Amino acid sequence: MAGPVSPLAPPGGFPDLPPIAGVRFASIEAGVRYTGRKDVMLAVMDPGTVVAGVFTQSATRAAPVLDCEAKIGTDAPDGAAILVNSGNANAFTGTRGVAAVTAITRQVARTTGIPEQRVFTASTGVIGEPMPADRITEKLGDLNDQLSPGGIAGAADAIMTTDTFAKGASRVAEVDGQAVAIAGIAKGSGMIAPDMATMLVFIFTDAKIAQTDLQAMVSRLNARTFNCITVDGDTSTSDTLLVAATGQSGVDVNGSTPFENALHAVMRDLAHLVVRDGEGASKFVTVDITGARDTADARKAGLAIANSPLVKTAIAGEDPNWGRVVMAVGKSGAAADRDRLSIRFGDVLVADKGWVSPEYREEDAAAHMKGEEIEIAVDLGLGDGTATIWTCDLTARYIEINADYRS
Amino acid sequence: MAGPVSPLAPPGGFPDLPPIAGVRFASIEAGVRYTGRKDVMLAVMDPGTVVAGVFTQSATRAAPVLDCEAKIGTDAPDGAAILVNSGNANAFTGTRGVAAVTAITRQVARTTGIPEQRVFTASTGVIGEPMPADRITEKLGDLNDQLSPGGIAGAADAIMTTDTFAKGASRVAEVDGQAVAIAGIAKGSGMIAPDMATMLVFIFTDAKIAQTDLQAMVSRLNARTFNCITVDGDTSTSDTLLVAATGQSGVDVNGSTPFENALHAVMRDLAHLVVRDGEGASKFVTVDITGARDTADARKAGLAIANSPLVKTAIAGEDPNWGRVVMAVGKSGAAADRDRLSIRFGDVLVADKGWVSPEYREEDAAAHMKGEEIEIAVDLGLGDGTATIWTCDLTARYIEINADYRS
Repeated sequence: MAGPVSPLAPPGGFPDLPPIAGVRFASIEAGVRYTGRKDVMLAVMDPGTVVAGVFTQSATRAAPVLDCEAKIGTDAPDGAAILVNSGNANAFTGTRGVAAVTAITRQVARTTGIPEQRVFTASTGVIGEPMPADRITEKLGDLNDQLSPGGIAGAADAIMTTDTFAKGASRVAEVDGQAVAIAGIAKGSGMIAPDMATMLVFIFTDAKIAQTDLQAMVSRLNARTFNCITVDGDTSTSDTLLVAATGQSGVDVNGSTPFENALHAVMRDLAHLVVRDGEGASKFVTVDITGARDTADARKAGLAIANSPLVKTAIAGEDPNWGRVVMAVGKSGAAADRDRLSIRFGDVLVADKGWVSPEYREEDAAAHMKGEEIEIAVDLGLGDGTATIWTCDLTARYIEINADYRS
Repeated sequence: MAGPVSPLAPPGGFPDLPPIAGVRFASIEAGVRYTGRKDVMLAVMDPGTVVAGVFTQSATRAAPVLDCEAKIGTDAPDGAAILVNSGNANAFTGTRGVAAVTAITRQVARTTGIPEQRVFTASTGVIGEPMPADRITEKLGDLNDQLSPGGIAGAADAIMTTDTFAKGASRVAEVDGQAVAIAGIAKGSGMIAPDMATMLVFIFTDAKIAQTDLQAMVSRLNARTFNCITVDGDTSTSDTLLVAATGQSGVDVNGSTPFENALHAVMRDLAHLVVRDGEGASKFVTVDITGARDTADARKAGLAIANSPLVKTAIAGEDPNWGRVVMAVGKSGAAADRDRLSIRFGDVLVADKGWVSPEYREEDAAAHMKGEEIEIAVDLGLGDGTATIWTCDLTARYIEINADYRS
């Protein structure tokens, strides 16, 4: 499906991820829609695993999302399984979509011995087409046979759609002198195109933690990572983040700052990788807001800048067009006072308290815009609300990809 | 400035507009920024004129907007004047911007004999550069000498920036057997790029009506016309709509349905013309929402569809990609139930109550998408809220225009 690899992809390719005790992976070609590539992954976690999740807020969310939402939130002595397919999103598929989820989760349960209530699924691909559940269920025996601790790279491949590279990240946290490993994979190349670019993220750790504590931590970190990225302002019907903790390190991480920092780093890395695979992206953009009335206003201003087609096209054109940043702040709904607004592009102070900075020379800002990493910092001068939003530029390639996608 | 004329421009060129008793126009080359073209217009209205206005809600609105807002809303026996320049928006220009507005309005007052409190201005062009007010004030004598009832076409030319054609519309209403004329001009080719594509609209009528009644009518109609168009979801710091009624027909139009219908038609025509000049537009798109919980939800859903880069690029690609419409409804924040949602492209029923319609054939919808006028109708099946939003597609030409605009 994918075109050339994004110019913002990490140079080293898919990273080496540490094995996570208590998790095994398999992936396979099931021909859900694609041929000649893996399109289904299975992860099976040992008894004692807890799973936390965050899901799309879309009012038209897909059947697998609704199923996961219903199942998440219980501590259980049982194991857990995550099955993911690409090629078909099983979204806008009515009662038949629900039946497909049931067929898949039931067969996963039968094959792996995990209770159905502990089988989570996610689907990404075309919307509105019937999900060929049997193509998945008939492969479950083979998938189960192939499960191995090192199968995570294949799993990352199997969940790709319009992604131009597979995405993984890891950290090892030292908690009270003991090592706790975290490894995650993600897919997505828009925030997030509904056809084939839903964001799915699966993170695994051998940490020991209660489900409610893990859920609280994941929700808190999600607000500062995946909820702070945008490619096109479009939200998928299927966005799913699952974090599974097997407990097999024996290290209790509740309240551990090193663990939370490590999980934060993995989530931020994966979030950045999604932006770096943004459709048509040629620049990675960080929007830093300070001085907002409160955090909510900081987010509003940051997202308005990061989602503005005019700001994003200016970045694509390497044009330090700060007037468009002013416009975006103005329309954002955040409290703003024109005469307190300051704007920087990189280290270059462009506008200071409502007026072009006296030292501003356009060539300085233009030099920053020629880089691959763009920083736009806006101080609203009103309070202590801050937010950081990550996005990419809007290029003609985005139009090409999305105007011709299904044909 | 402008490239080739929009393919969606009306074939007949600028229309013949009826003279409006009590209004005279002039336009001139003042060299505010452009050379070799008119860039300043002046309209002078006789005593007895009332003026209503609607302005951008941006938190970073420009100095002329703030000045107009402060002046609007008084019935006055005096005349009124409207002075507009292109080339410089006088936005984000701090106290110097305010001083420039004062210099201009004062000189207009001196030259025309209209009280300064009745002189309205609007500016469109680059943001953040000092406004060279003297280039305008030194032309006011010449402008005043040239005032004529037929000068409206020249005025429409003078206010253009990235517009590819001048925009005008008119109606004659029959009120109690007597004719009341309405003529208007507009500029804008984004909703609305801040650099040079602010939306400015000036409408003139010889109707007799109190200021408060005219203001109420204009605000009411604005909600169904200019507030229902979007090109890129970006909002200018300078959007301005002024409606001046001279009273010289002697026909009292307060409460007159024929007059309100005629004014509505002029406002809708001008709103459509702005969309038809949308940057890079190749399709004129009507989004009709029905069955929403209420009007506010209908607007949310309609704007989410009309502003979605994925919907707009699909239209550019002539792809009846209804999954993206589902996505946009889902993310809009409007109440929605996947299983009650119906979608039509033109006359083609695509999705019916949460599932692809059994009669749907993609080639039927694809045939509709090949046209220049695209209709997307969504019924949410929940209530009686309705809205109609107009937009255009998102093409590679939009990127070209906006990525390279200032360089």
